[in-house]
Amino acid sequence: MTRNAPIATRNEVARAVRSALVTNGYADLRTAHIADASSKSEGSLYYYYETKDEQLAVFLRRAPTWFDERIEEIDASDPDERLREICDLLIASDEDDPLYGLQIVLMQLTSHASYNPPQLREALTEYKRHLHGIISEQLRAGIGQKIYRNDIDPEETATFILMVLDGTIGSGTALEMQGFETDAQTQLEAYLDDLLI
Amino acid sequence: MTRNAPIATRNEVARAVRSALVTNGYADLRTAHIADASSKSEGSLYYYYETKDEQLAVFLRRAPTWFDERIEEIDASDPDERLREICDLLIASDEDDPLYGLQIVLMQLTSHASYNPPQLREALTEYKRHLHGIISEQLRAGIGQKIYRNDIDPEETATFILMVLDGTIGSGTALEMQGFETDAQTQLEAYLDDLLI
Repeated sequence: MTRNAPIATRNEVARAVRSALVTNGYADLRTAHIADASSKSEGSLYYYYETKDEQLAVFLRRAPTWFDERIEEIDASDPDERLREICDLLIASDEDDPLYGLQIVLMQLTSHASYNPPQLREALTEYKRHLHGIISEQLRAGIGQKIYRNDIDPEETATFILMVLDGTIGSGTALEMQGFETDAQTQLEAYLDDLLI
Repeated sequence: MTRNAPIATRNEVARAVRSALVTNGYADLRTAHIADASSKSEGSLYYYYETKDEQLAVFLRRAPTWFDERIEEIDASDPDERLREICDLLIASDEDDPLYGLQIVLMQLTSHASYNPPQLREALTEYKRHLHGIISEQLRAGIGQKIYRNDIDPEETATFILMVLDGTIGSGTALEMQGFETDAQTQLEAYLDDLLI
């Protein structure tokens, strides 16, 4: 049974899991790493979250807000400009960016989804849908403002863009194939240019 | 020190790692799983490959040939038709396909690349370059045969296609978001249509 943790505890656990994941990678993650990254002892983490998977679920439910906070900082009001900045932000390949590493560990969890309990799959699915919603929102706004062609399907197009970003995070960021990253970004720019009226 | 294993042993280790990875996932992979999936004892695996990472490297160096064998079976000679069949094959999302699960575990290793020793990163980079080469070869053939437009950059375009496939393997296959998979494939078809003269 999971006890209802106070919000401050949930947020701290989410941040500790994030930090421990980015440092150690999912395959080597131990609850001791999570405890080390928080002010809590392993025992008190287990008081609220009895398994590592429950701790991971707290992290996954919190993950969308870390991107939302950054997206809110984008100044551009033009949907096309916003979308391009969002794409850059979601690749998060700059090692000095606090988001660096976060997308990589989310990819680790995504690729292990079928081995993990349903609660993790559901939280990951929610997270992907959330990003998809952010992208499709810009596309719909752009179509509405006659910036993007009105024959594009915003839902399908958002999926395609998200798949390009996810693939680029894998080979480009995680595997550090910089040539792939640059080429994928150039082609994504061209793809977005093609959506314009 | 790694002793030079006979080819038959290398192949058996590669197959055993593949099977153990697909069954258990990278995060839970133990050398005992690999030994269980082979005719070798854990002790005799260690005689040739002293660490799990060395066993994984053998698997990664063998992985391209499993795709090559399947690509060789494609009958189509038209580069565009071949490319579309290759894209389907690389997503490998049909659970009855022997390739099912292989791309997912390769994605698990890709997303852990920066936590792993250089030999694994190098083998993964080679594997990605190999797939990229297969895709760009079809694009170049298609441009040569005036099937594809001659203003496309076959290298960049191959990267973009590979990133779409990789992203789709993550969300579509590993996370089983079938809607994403269908939409990404529809949009990839449209993207390929756009390359045609």
